[in-house]
This record gives sequence, structure tokens and C-alpha cells, in this order.
Amino acid sequence: MRLILVTGANRGIGFELVKQFLERSNPPEKIFATCRNPDGAQELKNLASRHPNLVIVQLEVTDPVSIKAAAARVEGLLKGSGLHLLINNAGIVKKTTLEAETPEYMSQVYATNTTGPLVISQAFLPLLKKAVQESAQKGLSCSKAAIINMSSEAGSIKNVLAWEFGQVVSYRCSKAALNMLTKCQSLAYRELGILCIALHPGWLQTTMGNTGGYQAPMTVDEGVRGIINTLSKLSEKETGAFINWEGNLLPW
Amino acid sequence: MRLILVTGANRGIGFELVKQFLERSNPPEKIFATCRNPDGAQELKNLASRHPNLVIVQLEVTDPVSIKAAAARVEGLLKGSGLHLLINNAGIVKKTTLEAETPEYMSQVYATNTTGPLVISQAFLPLLKKAVQESAQKGLSCSKAAIINMSSEAGSIKNVLAWEFGQVVSYRCSKAALNMLTKCQSLAYRELGILCIALHPGWLQTTMGNTGGYQAPMTVDEGVRGIINTLSKLSEKETGAFINWEGNLLPW
Ligand SMILES: NC(=O)c1ccc[n+]([C@@H]2O[C@H](COP(=O)([O-])OP(=O)(O)OC[C@H]3O[C@@H](n4cnc5c(N)ncnc54)[C@H](OP(=O)(O)O)[C@@H]3O)[C@@H](O)[C@H]2O)c1
Ligand SMILES: NC(=O)c1ccc[n+]([C@@H]2O[C@H](COP(=O)([O-])OP(=O)(O)OC[C@H]3O[C@@H](n4cnc5c(N)ncnc54)[C@H](OP(=O)(O)O)[C@@H]3O)[C@@H](O)[C@H]2O)c1
Repeated sequence: MRLILVTGANRGIGFELVKQFLERSNPPEKIFATCRNPDGAQELKNLASRHPNLVIVQLEVTDPVSIKAAAARVEGLLKGSGLHLLINNAGIVKKTTLEAETPEYMSQVYATNTTGPLVISQAFLPLLKKAVQESAQKGLSCSKAAIINMSSEAGSIKNVLAWEFGQVVSYRCSKAALNMLTKCQSLAYRELGILCIALHPGWLQTTMGNTGGYQAPMTVDEGVRGIINTLSKLSEKETGAFINWEGNLLPW
Repeated sequence: MRLILVTGANRGIGFELVKQFLERSNPPEKIFATCRNPDGAQELKNLASRHPNLVIVQLEVTDPVSIKAAAARVEGLLKGSGLHLLINNAGIVKKTTLEAETPEYMSQVYATNTTGPLVISQAFLPLLKKAVQESAQKGLSCSKAAIINMSSEAGSIKNVLAWEFGQVVSYRCSKAALNMLTKCQSLAYRELGILCIALHPGWLQTTMGNTGGYQAPMTVDEGVRGIINTLSKLSEKETGAFINWEGNLLPW
């Protein structure tokens, strides 16, 4: 996992992913931390001042123009190399009941959580393909080429995690749809050598995780430690699957 | 199933549902056939001229104003009675590959196939509740109060039906999300006495079913015969489930 991009990296799980990747004994050659407002991303800037392999890139996930510009910039910075690992992490939730759900929430949440990962994956596909061409590895892995979509067990239609804590129907629908997108990507990209996974990061103490005044049960540090360990072990056996931070399979 | 509403009833599966309900030996007291353009709904008008219990109602599923107006009109026509069966049937598909999928398709298809059924169910909820109050039946059934969301096995994340016939990722994502909506509705409305089901009608010979130049394997007549038979047998055991026209359970 030498060349990595993470969306929504200015805070929460995205920021912690970037931080822990940089702190590894074998850190990435380059990690692209994208956020919609780089000027305000103070923690990322502090981190970048200590890590020259961290590059902050503007990327608004609901704006195809911003996505294209980010892909062009990353392509330039990679100087002919491919991208190994694309982590579609940025996401939003609107705290509502089924009764109070609105068309505006439905479309905003879907645009961010589902369409965003679709369009970003399309834009970075050429760089993922390039990584495959450069690789001598057989099979699929995150060190060859992978798309990781940050899903949620709240989007498991079977489990409907934490219904009693918040109905958040627009969020659940967007993540179920993201799981479907992941499955479709795995079917289309398997032959190309790209691993595709829907990942539940755990219920973690971020702004989103603590939505509604509850404290989430796990620290971001612990969840992200699990995620990075799990990513390093993924293979073609898991492509198209829905797994959690520990690598355990979740039902759709 | 005495008081019924079907969306997208001017052609395809929606029209056939209305027709077959009217042809039953015990036809509905009133069936509301909704469509976005009643003026152009010639087949429905012909049917209405023979069946005074058929009422054509304007309803554009992506327009909350049209939905509210339809609910008010239906409430008036019901003269104090509730609605037993709401069938969210209207739907669209955009024939594309994953590569050619666009944000516009994603949002249009989601607005029609997922947000539409959400908002329509909210608008007709008071009439469904009224039907529950009027009913002496125990348990849940389509003759007491039910929401049937027309889903598709193409939206089963496990099965991804007919991937080789068309990737149609925006459609698959919208139906996976509709399945999640159905599950959420079943959790929220079970206590109210309302049955909620995601239904795969079969791959049927309609404009949509024949998309892409293939002939679908089953006639609309046969599929709809199965659907009506299955609806009449549903109970609280099935609420929140994903079933096909024959009543068989499908995986999410
Ligand atoms: N925390 C949990 O318990 C949990 C559980 C399951 C799944 N998840 C998933 O994990 C991912 C990260 O969640 P989190 O807990 O870290 O949430 P968070 O603390 O609320 O952070 C969300 C991140 O996404 C970014 N973002 C939102 N909309 C964006 C847009 N349109 N363009 C670019 N960036 C955007 C935010 O940027 P701004 O600062 O600019 O808003 C922020 O960096 C999400 O996909 C979430 O659904 C989280
Ligand atoms: N046919 C199949 O094999 C199949 C398989 C699985 C699931 N389904 C599902 O079954 C349902 C019916 O499909 P079908 O095969 O009958 O499709 P169809 O022949 O294409 O008919 C679609 C119907 O939906 C209506 N509609 C579309 N957008 C609308 C909107 N914004 N407002 C109001 N009405 C709208 C259409 O009205 P207009 O005439 O005004 O366009 C038409 O009445 C859909 O939800 C579809 O996804 C079908």
C-alpha cells in the first residue's frame, strides 16, 4: 500500500487513516489526503509539515469538476506511477426519523455517500489500472490496486444496526446502495485486477459516530488500527464482500 | 383488498395490476390508478369507461406537490374510509454500463425509484392508519393495510440478476436502497398494523422488461397473476421481507 488516496481526510476516520498510515514502520511513498476545504484543514496541514509524503488535495465529492481536477493533479504528482489504494471515506448523515425524512435529505445524502464514490472511482480508474500494469503480483490486494468504499452496518438491510439509536433512513438507503455499487464494481473490475470492498469501520467516536448525543462504543484509534490491519490482508477471496474493521463478513 | 392505489398505472405492470384487480370475481370497491399524465392514459380511460370503481388520479412520483394533491383527492373520494393497499409500482431504468453511469442518472433514478415510494408512503400513511382502525383483523395483511414496493431481483446485492444483460448500476443501487427503505418502513409501521413488502414482479415483457432489445422471459399477464395471488396470502410473517411474484423469499 505505497500510493494511497483517502477522501474526507480532514477529520474523523479519514484523518486517522492518513495519520496511522504515515506512522507505520513502512509508510506510504505518497498519501493523498483529500478534503473539500484544504484552507481550513489545520490538522492535516500540521501533519503535512512533518510528513513530506503527505499531499493535501482539494476534492468535493459531489462535484464532478472538482473530482476531475483532483484526478488530474494526482496523476501529475504520481509522475507516471499508478494508485494502489483508493479509500472512498467521505460521508454524511442527516439525523431524522422516517416520518421527517425529506426528498432533499435523500438526494444530498445519496449524492455524497453513493454517487460520490461512483464518480471518484470512475475518475481514478486509469490510475488504478496503471498500478495493476506495474504490479508483478498475482490475484487481488490493496498493495496492487483496490477501491475501499466506507460503508456502514447501518446500511446492512438484514442487521439495520442501531435502529433504536436513529432511524436515519436516507443514510441507511445510501449505504445499502453503496454496497450494491461495490458489488457492481467488483464484478466489472475483477478482470482488471482491482479489489473492491465495502467496509464497516466500526461504530467510532467521531462527529458522525457520536451523532444524536450518544458516545460511540469504540475509539477512532482502535477502529482505524483494525481497518489498516484488515486492508493489508485482503485478497481476491474478499472482492465484492461487505466486511467490518476486523475482517469479518457482514450480511447485505 | 377493497381499496387500492397503484402508481405508474398507465402501462406495463401497473396497468395490468389494475386490469386484473378489476377482473376478479370480487373486484375492489375502488381502485385508484395513478399516472403522471392522465390525459395521455388512453388504455386506462377505456378501462374506466367500463369500470366505475376505477378512478384515474394524477401523480408524478418525483413531485411532492403532486403527491400531496393526489393524497388529498383520494382522501376526499374515500369519504372517510381508509386505504388498504398502496402499491408503489412506478419506476425507471437508464440503460448504461458502470463506466458510462452519470450523476444525473444516479439522481433521477433514485428520485423516482426510492425517494418517490418514501414520500408517497408518508403522504398516504394517514389513510393506511385509518384502514387499520376500521379493521377487525388480527395480524398484518394486504386486506388490512399494506405498502408494496415494486423492487427487482436486479437490486439483490447477492444475486445481481441479469448483470450480463445490462449493468444498469443506477437502477440496481436504487432498488437495493428501496429494499432498505422497505425494511425501515416495516420496522416503523409494524406496530401501526401495516404490512411492508419489497416485491420482485418477475422479469416481464414490458417496455422496461424488454430494455436493450431482449425479450423478457415471462408475460405481464402471468407475472401479475402470480403477484395478486401472492399479495392475497401475505401475513405478518413476511413483513419487511423481499419476495418474488410467487411468494418466494429473495436474498438482500
Ligand atoms: N463514525 C462511525 O461510527 C461510522 C460508522 C459507520 C460508517 N462510518 C462511515 O465512515 C466514513 C467517515 O465517517 P466519520 O465518522 O469520519 O465522519 P465525520 O467525522 O463526520 O467526517 C466526515 C468526513 O467526510 C467529509 N465530507 C462530507 N461531505 C463531503 C463532501 N461533499 N466532499 C468532501 N468531503 C466531505 C467531511 O468533510 P468536512 O469537514 O468538510 O465536512 C469529513 O472529512 C463515512 O462514510 C461514514 O458514513 C462511520
Ligand atoms: N418489467 C420487468 O421485468 C421488471 C422487473 C423487475 C422490476 N420491475 C419493476 O416494476 C415496476 C413497473 O415496471 P414496468 O416493467 O411496468 O415498467 P414500464 O413498462 O417502463 O412502466 C413504468 C411505469 O412507471 C411510470 N413512471 C415512471 N416514472 C414516473 C414518474 N416520475 N411519475 C409517475 N409515473 C412514472 C411510467 O409512466 P409513463 O408512461 O408516464 O412513463 C409507467 O407507467 C418498476 O418499478 C420496475 O422497476 C419490472
